Amino acid sequence: MNSSHQSDIAPDTSAYGPLLIIGGHESKEGDCEILRRVVQHAGGGKIVVVTAASQEPDSEFDTYLKAFQRLGACDVRELRIELRAEALRPAACLEGAAAIFFSGGDQVRLSSVLGSTPVLETIQTLWANGCLIAGTSAGASIMSEIMIIGGESETSCRSETPLQMGAGFGFVGGVIIDQHFSQRGRFGRLLSAVAYNPACLGIGIDEDTAAFISNGTCLTVSGSGAVYILDGRSSTYSNVGSSAAASIVSISDVIVHSLCSGDTFDLRNSKRRL
Amino acid sequence: MNSSHQSDIAPDTSAYGPLLIIGGHESKEGDCEILRRVVQHAGGGKIVVVTAASQEPDSEFDTYLKAFQRLGACDVRELRIELRAEALRPAACLEGAAAIFFSGGDQVRLSSVLGSTPVLETIQTLWANGCLIAGTSAGASIMSEIMIIGGESETSCRSETPLQMGAGFGFVGGVIIDQHFSQRGRFGRLLSAVAYNPACLGIGIDEDTAAFISNGTCLTVSGSGAVYILDGRSSTYSNVGSSAAASIVSISDVIVHSLCSGDTFDLRNSKRRL
Repeated sequence: MNSSHQSDIAPDTSAYGPLLIIGGHESKEGDCEILRRVVQHAGGGKIVVVTAASQEPDSEFDTYLKAFQRLGACDVRELRIELRAEALRPAACLEGAAAIFFSGGDQVRLSSVLGSTPVLETIQTLWANGCLIAGTSAGASIMSEIMIIGGESETSCRSETPLQMGAGFGFVGGVIIDQHFSQRGRFGRLLSAVAYNPACLGIGIDEDTAAFISNGTCLTVSGSGAVYILDGRSSTYSNVGSSAAASIVSISDVIVHSLCSGDTFDLRNSKRRL
Repeated sequence: MNSSHQSDIAPDTSAYGPLLIIGGHESKEGDCEILRRVVQHAGGGKIVVVTAASQEPDSEFDTYLKAFQRLGACDVRELRIELRAEALRPAACLEGAAAIFFSGGDQVRLSSVLGSTPVLETIQTLWANGCLIAGTSAGASIMSEIMIIGGESETSCRSETPLQMGAGFGFVGGVIIDQHFSQRGRFGRLLSAVAYNPACLGIGIDEDTAAFISNGTCLTVSGSGAVYILDGRSSTYSNVGSSAAASIVSISDVIVHSLCSGDTFDLRNSKRRL
């Protein structure tokens, strides 16, 4: 039942489907640059909306059903999972899906209900065969192997109350994703996550903005905001883990990039593609 | 009448008084770590509170009078200036001041009322003779040669609506200061200021947090939050100034440091002192 990404040797996902990781509040009116990518990738095929993160799945699905239909999708289904027991049975609606969209809510609901289940395994098999995996807000955070599940916004993080982290679905390795990034003032929170996990790139995604990842490593930005990359791998100092009295997280020489629509970034070498 | 910092060759300010640059909402109860530094530096000498940034100078002065008196200050005066004409006359209350404190409000009121006036020249002379210059919120922004005077928080900055910048009082060169930094989600705004002015270090100061600058270059942090340094001098790419269509500000390889209470940073070489 364990999915392949949880094995010791990470699979080569470069031939898998692309990822569309959205910072929340993507436009559902007008051109819908971001949601249109889902419909385009599906190419007339089935789009499955996973509403498991939400406590109001009915209205959540209704919103995306209308948006995707307006953009030309003709086969949009909901994967409604409210209890973990439901994720232990095969989900017929997933069969042949061309795109899977994780809507927003609480990423802990997603991980606790779907983590390491046959339904998630089916999704991973679809992904390995080219299915697009998209997610917004909580559905964005869940994409990585480790994710932020709690921690204050609009403050600098204190070392005595480190961020709560949890296991995501592992569609993209070596990163930690935060959403609603500028709108909720989450720079301090993501910087703290990077200080605690310097091997991971921090990816902060604004609302109505998306990181599209193809070939497993090539990140391209779309939407009206920015995507921020926080690279702490070469940082020269951090007070995390020191025995000193509890204090604000302090770190030096983190390299930051901001990317706007059309910009491309190589996650493998952490460089902007010019 | 022009003050010396406006000449082409910047004066050596290393022997001048220190600066205490506060991100707003500094504690006025209990230990008052930050305001206590003002009283300590004054050492029984006169503290002058400049309320010119505020539209409610009475209550502003009253707040600081009580706080400084509670911390042991015995000579606290207000420099009340509401019109530029008042700043063209000598201000007797400044005579012999050991510490000058710019309270919060609107930094444009400060610069337009006091910029290039005899009163500011008197303050600069006092500073050159060892007087502490302190400022909170708007009084922090005014410390630099160029300052942010307008621009949205909690968003990524768009190149077609760049930040509004103005001239500060120039107590510290080569930097741009933003305040209420984490609390108002201003990372995107300060990063944009650095993209437009890559020769300047961005200094983002949290609420109840201060950067104490001595010898003109040695920055030490105090208070409950963090001070962030954004160094874009070695950035390898920015879309600012490009002829491309208007978009979100995009920049790469900005080096970021977060500093907590007790941390020291050398502004001259932009390095943390370990």
